[in-house]
Amino acid sequence: MSDRLYLFDTTLRDGAQTQGVDFSVADKEAIASALDMIGIDYIEGGWPGANPTDDAFFQKPPRLASATLVAFGMTRRPGRSAENDPGLAPILSSKAGAACLVGKSWDFHVDVALEIEREENVAMIRDSIALAKERKGLAMYDAEHFFDGFKANKAFALDCVTAAYEAGARWIVLCDTNGGTLPDEIERIVAEVTAHVPGSHLGIHAHNDTENAVANSLAAVRAGVRQVQGTINGLGERCGNANIMALIPSLVLKMGMDCGVSKDRLKDLTGLSRLLDERLNRQPNRHQAYVGDAAFAHKGGLHVSAVAKDPRTYEHIDPALVGNRRHIVVSDQAGRSNVVAMLNEIGVELEEPALRRLLERVKEQEFKGYAYDGAEASFELLARRTLGEVPDYFDLIRFRVIDERRRNAIGNLVTESEATVMVEVAGEQAMRVANGNGPVNALDTALRDALKGRYPDLEAMHLIDYKVRIMPPAADGTGTDAVTRVTIESRDEAGARWTTVGVSANIIDASVMALYDAYAYRLFRAGARGA
Amino acid sequence: MSDRLYLFDTTLRDGAQTQGVDFSVADKEAIASALDMIGIDYIEGGWPGANPTDDAFFQKPPRLASATLVAFGMTRRPGRSAENDPGLAPILSSKAGAACLVGKSWDFHVDVALEIEREENVAMIRDSIALAKERKGLAMYDAEHFFDGFKANKAFALDCVTAAYEAGARWIVLCDTNGGTLPDEIERIVAEVTAHVPGSHLGIHAHNDTENAVANSLAAVRAGVRQVQGTINGLGERCGNANIMALIPSLVLKMGMDCGVSKDRLKDLTGLSRLLDERLNRQPNRHQAYVGDAAFAHKGGLHVSAVAKDPRTYEHIDPALVGNRRHIVVSDQAGRSNVVAMLNEIGVELEEPALRRLLERVKEQEFKGYAYDGAEASFELLARRTLGEVPDYFDLIRFRVIDERRRNAIGNLVTESEATVMVEVAGEQAMRVANGNGPVNALDTALRDALKGRYPDLEAMHLIDYKVRIMPPAADGTGTDAVTRVTIESRDEAGARWTTVGVSANIIDASVMALYDAYAYRLFRAGARGA
Repeated sequence: MSDRLYLFDTTLRDGAQTQGVDFSVADKEAIASALDMIGIDYIEGGWPGANPTDDAFFQKPPRLASATLVAFGMTRRPGRSAENDPGLAPILSSKAGAACLVGKSWDFHVDVALEIEREENVAMIRDSIALAKERKGLAMYDAEHFFDGFKANKAFALDCVTAAYEAGARWIVLCDTNGGTLPDEIERIVAEVTAHVPGSHLGIHAHNDTENAVANSLAAVRAGVRQVQGTINGLGERCGNANIMALIPSLVLKMGMDCGVSKDRLKDLTGLSRLLDERLNRQPNRHQAYVGDAAFAHKGGLHVSAVAKDPRTYEHIDPALVGNRRHIVVSDQAGRSNVVAMLNEIGVELEEPALRRLLERVKEQEFKGYAYDGAEASFELLARRTLGEVPDYFDLIRFRVIDERRRNAIGNLVTESEATVMVEVAGEQAMRVANGNGPVNALDTALRDALKGRYPDLEAMHLIDYKVRIMPPAADGTGTDAVTRVTIESRDEAGARWTTVGVSANIIDASVMALYDAYAYRLFRAGARGA
Repeated sequence: MSDRLYLFDTTLRDGAQTQGVDFSVADKEAIASALDMIGIDYIEGGWPGANPTDDAFFQKPPRLASATLVAFGMTRRPGRSAENDPGLAPILSSKAGAACLVGKSWDFHVDVALEIEREENVAMIRDSIALAKERKGLAMYDAEHFFDGFKANKAFALDCVTAAYEAGARWIVLCDTNGGTLPDEIERIVAEVTAHVPGSHLGIHAHNDTENAVANSLAAVRAGVRQVQGTINGLGERCGNANIMALIPSLVLKMGMDCGVSKDRLKDLTGLSRLLDERLNRQPNRHQAYVGDAAFAHKGGLHVSAVAKDPRTYEHIDPALVGNRRHIVVSDQAGRSNVVAMLNEIGVELEEPALRRLLERVKEQEFKGYAYDGAEASFELLARRTLGEVPDYFDLIRFRVIDERRRNAIGNLVTESEATVMVEVAGEQAMRVANGNGPVNALDTALRDALKGRYPDLEAMHLIDYKVRIMPPAADGTGTDAVTRVTIESRDEAGARWTTVGVSANIIDASVMALYDAYAYRLFRAGARGA
């Protein structure tokens, strides 16, 4: 038996069950590719036949370097052959490399939810797994509610998993579907199961309903399972699934497990965590284990001085191992070391008094509602402006946007946006007007039309994302009204991406500020001279 | 030895170390009182002498029904007697009922951070605990970095804790200060320690740096400790402390422990969790175990139909036990059973063929980019419109919004938004114009101005949140262009909140749709007649 541990990510399937989560096909492709790059063994992409997004994803799956793409589905229906089951067909004919079929293993569910004979449930598992193995080569069985089932009726639960094993399942995944099992129970039950199915064919699928999903997964590994399922950032319905961002570093760095994610790939974990939050337009959890922004933040004075002597005094691992970094959070000093670390990252060297000027500027901007985490291009511009390196490329003297809903010539209601801008560039004023499918699109088109003569570099860039966040007024009444923060992501023809930010009480104004920085960053990178 | 388990909350001390957390004295009083009410045994209120807030809190501590208020501090400095230590004095003279003193137990820290003789460290613990016991009656020792210390130098770590025990400490709290220890190590080490100090005098203080703080605490309890420390919602620096919101229900409901929080008080846990978030002006974590808003939310269609038959099929406990409740979520993952359950929740009875029409309508809308999970008011309107229950309150014939940046009379750049609307209500057309600090604000003001004569109910409602998401075009080219989804949350004077959604290629158009539903929902609830 190999002692290799296999990682199985279900962000795109079980994670997609989360309230408020709605992946597009492009999201799925980007996330699958990132999981593949980091060395995840199995990527569950969705459920062919369940919805148009999953159908489209499996029709043209992304090319993966080493991971196996898995299609999820259910075992056949009662009273029907696996070959003639319309639910199974799209899974077995999909372009995925493996099929993972869920079935019941708790007698209560068979009796109450399915309302069928228990023997028929075992037959459904056996037939479906055998057919999936025949058609796909690699079949897995998700034993739903296995731990509840084992506690209620051990013999029946074991019948279900041994049926799958004997039918040729490469993996039998023990699911704590309701998430209510505690780690010591998981460890004890898994140990009992290994007497029936070898651990090298067992997996664990844990949910976080008691905040023990990670501990339950580790307990199962200690008891012998060799496949671990989870999701990026613990995404998943109710309280989420086991968080692979926490599982992988503990498995590799602390338990010394041999798995597809090698030690040197761990440094991509923090980036993978952020990728998911960006795709979902979510605020990252600062306090997330290993990869959170605050996971290695030190606030208390005694902690900070000890960390300065030796980081091991208050850090359980070197943050660089997982691609994270230390933050020192002590009034002025804190801001400073943070800003210096960010400057190092973008390769800007700043000395006094410019550094102090930049620090003050960052503080002012943050007070206004700016956040430079995730808007590195705007931060770099701020830093380089402090050094006088960034010219004023143009002056937006005024603009006007009109959004109008009216009936068109054939009587349909249409909404159109029209932007008029007046810019001054190289001493000359230019006025342009453009239509767009929204106010920001219209402004972007009009501005670039006005600027392209002087700055041809702006032609080949595109806005690819636009995010809005309302920052509520401070509860203690110190701030003023709510402000709007707009973040814009841009891309050039070579695939480079950069993110800029604008803040104002007015969403259009904030958008214009973020657009201005988006152009300025592109022009600075291209080495354009100022006007 | 009693088998009673004692709960120790350190939200107001260790939780206050969290970046961005800054309790006022009033916050501390409110939180301490709530912890007392629920039956927590020890409430650590802060560190007298460390800052003015903690001084003020301990000068006039809140009256507690059953909990003991604990003052935190450090063992005496090296080379000084405990009696003459200026750091210890404010703790020992405070009005708290007990003192908890932290000291080193890891030789590496004694050598590197303190740079003192190891014998002196043991003497510091012994002297300080003896004096605290004499002055306060009840003394505790927080053994900082105990687990790292035990692994590095077992004899020295044990010397530190036995010195505290022999000096009269009621509790010796084993701290996993850096949070890097895994549950199996915790269990093994605690079991070894119980050979030197009885478990009835041992506590556990875990941090969440590997996402195992809850599991580590439970493992320590299994190994014999009888005091558990943690914070509300897992507040704490870096990745947080052990979360008592997850610990308490597992200890009481699953492990059957006898502790100060009786089974019937558990139902106040969800409220306690929200209280902290309100005090900190934070968005509650929807996915938090037991108490999160989504902890008992069901989205998948099969799950929803099984829960309708028996909630135990997909719920590990009855949500009412912890003061939480079930939510049914609508989505494209779901199908008929989900929509039906959602209808039940809002009290709408729909039969065929109306149900089929609604299902088709939901699918069409989702294909356009709508998402109803998180926009329940728009879903309810959709359902009730299928039944013909919702009148057309008004017709927005056309609108125009102008956003303009220009110089004002004193030469400053200002950006203003102006909206013009024409509505038809009760057979009459009305045109209004309004300014706003953004296009949506201007539209909202103009629309309500045009409608308030006919619908006075619209006057007392307010928009409280506005979210934007760009849905990119499908990668397979099946969709059309990107669309924008706008979600608006509204509130009325009685505090009711509702969320509506609009989707369009144009952000302003999408906003208008979400606004329309926001008004319609308010009017429907108020029983307004249509125009």
